[in-house]
Amino acid sequence: MDSSISVTGLKGLPLIQKGDDIAALICNTVRLLDGDILCIATTIVSKANGYSRLLEDVIPGEQACSIASVTGEDPRFLQVVLDQAVDIIIETPFTLTSLPCGHVGVRSGVDASNVEHGYAVYLPPDPMGEASRIAERIREISGVSCRVILTDTCGRAFRRGQTGHAIGWSGMTAIRDFRGDCDLFGKVLEITEEAVIDEIAGFSNFVMGESNNGVPVVLFRGCPAWSGHDEMYFTKQEDIIRRSLQKEKC
Amino acid sequence: MDSSISVTGLKGLPLIQKGDDIAALICNTVRLLDGDILCIATTIVSKANGYSRLLEDVIPGEQACSIASVTGEDPRFLQVVLDQAVDIIIETPFTLTSLPCGHVGVRSGVDASNVEHGYAVYLPPDPMGEASRIAERIREISGVSCRVILTDTCGRAFRRGQTGHAIGWSGMTAIRDFRGDCDLFGKVLEITEEAVIDEIAGFSNFVMGESNNGVPVVLFRGCPAWSGHDEMYFTKQEDIIRRSLQKEKC
Ligand SMILES: Nc1nc2c(ncn2[C@@H]2O[C@H](COP(=O)(O)OP(=O)(O)O)[C@@H](O)[C@H]2O)c(=O)[nH]1
Ligand SMILES: Nc1nc2c(ncn2[C@@H]2O[C@H](COP(=O)(O)OP(=O)(O)O)[C@@H](O)[C@H]2O)c(=O)[nH]1
Ligand SMILES: [Mn+2]
Ligand SMILES: [Mn+2]
Ligand SMILES: [Mn+2]
Ligand SMILES: [Mn+2]
Repeated sequence: MDSSISVTGLKGLPLIQKGDDIAALICNTVRLLDGDILCIATTIVSKANGYSRLLEDVIPGEQACSIASVTGEDPRFLQVVLDQAVDIIIETPFTLTSLPCGHVGVRSGVDASNVEHGYAVYLPPDPMGEASRIAERIREISGVSCRVILTDTCGRAFRRGQTGHAIGWSGMTAIRDFRGDCDLFGKVLEITEEAVIDEIAGFSNFVMGESNNGVPVVLFRGCPAWSGHDEMYFTKQEDIIRRSLQKEKC
Repeated sequence: MDSSISVTGLKGLPLIQKGDDIAALICNTVRLLDGDILCIATTIVSKANGYSRLLEDVIPGEQACSIASVTGEDPRFLQVVLDQAVDIIIETPFTLTSLPCGHVGVRSGVDASNVEHGYAVYLPPDPMGEASRIAERIREISGVSCRVILTDTCGRAFRRGQTGHAIGWSGMTAIRDFRGDCDLFGKVLEITEEAVIDEIAGFSNFVMGESNNGVPVVLFRGCPAWSGHDEMYFTKQEDIIRRSLQKEKC
């Protein structure tokens, strides 16, 4: 049972407010070690940065109203969704968009849960920068070099239920690249690119839970390092599922 | 740091052969406790059961040859893929099918890695039964009640790279159901169904690795129990992405 990885949800963090220093709050909660991986729910990163909108102040446009007439959602909420998107893949039965960072998500990852009544939080517009700023700030406070993944709970294709996904990351590559490796029989591998940060983000999401659990940060200790690349997202042209959905929309 | 979950890849398991008793091999490797979750790569479950085919013996049909002429794959391998499918969603640029158990996967999850040269392993046709038989056999040998997830490495939509997915499970529900729960502000939740077994399977896949790592089993100790349901798969009619892809095929 040596060389185990330990996975711990951080308890006791406060309700995050605009201006809060998440790195400092984490460092006050736990003694970190070099190489630790911290998974942090984007919800709290967005709240700390004020990436939220008061729905009362949002004036929905034509497209938001038209989607709302089909889905029954709040058109102002949908306007926030549309404002985040660079591309709207489908409008109904749920709005699926792509964001500037490349992430494809239902309702642009905009969320009205775990934020004050009347507000919608949106994903950090620069999640890679946000992840590295938090890692840098932790280094500043504690001298420790952590790896950071920002997570969100997202739906996926072909399977019911949501899982945690990586939205931003720092100190590691998104994809572990096995190209050139051989299997147990010396054969060249067929599967060569493992999206390890989504596998880690997913399990952190299990530990966080969805409701009032109050665990927005999960610490992974003992994960090995890996090498690979950060080409997580397909281009619009490469992605055959996206092309198929968009063709149908036309 | 109390209430941590520990995650351990089991080292020292042999190359699995037809007829091997995986439960017994695991019990010889580690002392299990009630409530442990074991993630087991479907590859070894299939090898132990002889769920593999010698390509030399496979005669490819018309459809397999036609796909092979586009993709450049071995038509006999593609015949094994087609033989597993109940529905072929797309043929190219990669064959995407659904299996009798409901799983939708690239090349039906058929794999030529980590199996003897000239063979293709296919997924256990009854993965739920297989998972519960392994759990039952562990109970028989050791008196311990484990939870079991059978995993496979699969691609997904909208994001590059493969991740571990749950193919069969026993002793838990696929989906953790948060319906009726409230967020930190007392609001009813938007996201209510978390596919926790995929989150666990995904992280186990990170620990297993893809190549000659030789770690086909990962032990999770300290995971809480949850309640929910097993409706993991959409019906063909419900799944709008599948419908869109199949419409295009026609
Ligand atoms: N302590 C604390 N926990 C929070 C806060 N906001 C969310 N959480 C918790 O963080 C976890 C993930 O929250 P969720 O709303 O699902 O975030 P998302 O997955 O990023 O959309 C849950 O356990 C929430 O209860 C906060 O401001 N403070
Ligand atoms: N000890 C042992 N490890 C195996 C065997 N077959 C596969 N593995 C290991 O199990 C892990 C997962 O193997 P993989 O072929 O990716 O399985 P899949 O994800 O179910 O398709 C890797 O670490 C492999 O090296 C086996 O027969 N014996
Ligand atoms: Mn969210
Ligand atoms: Mn969540
Ligand atoms: Mn496989
Ligand atoms: Mn694998």
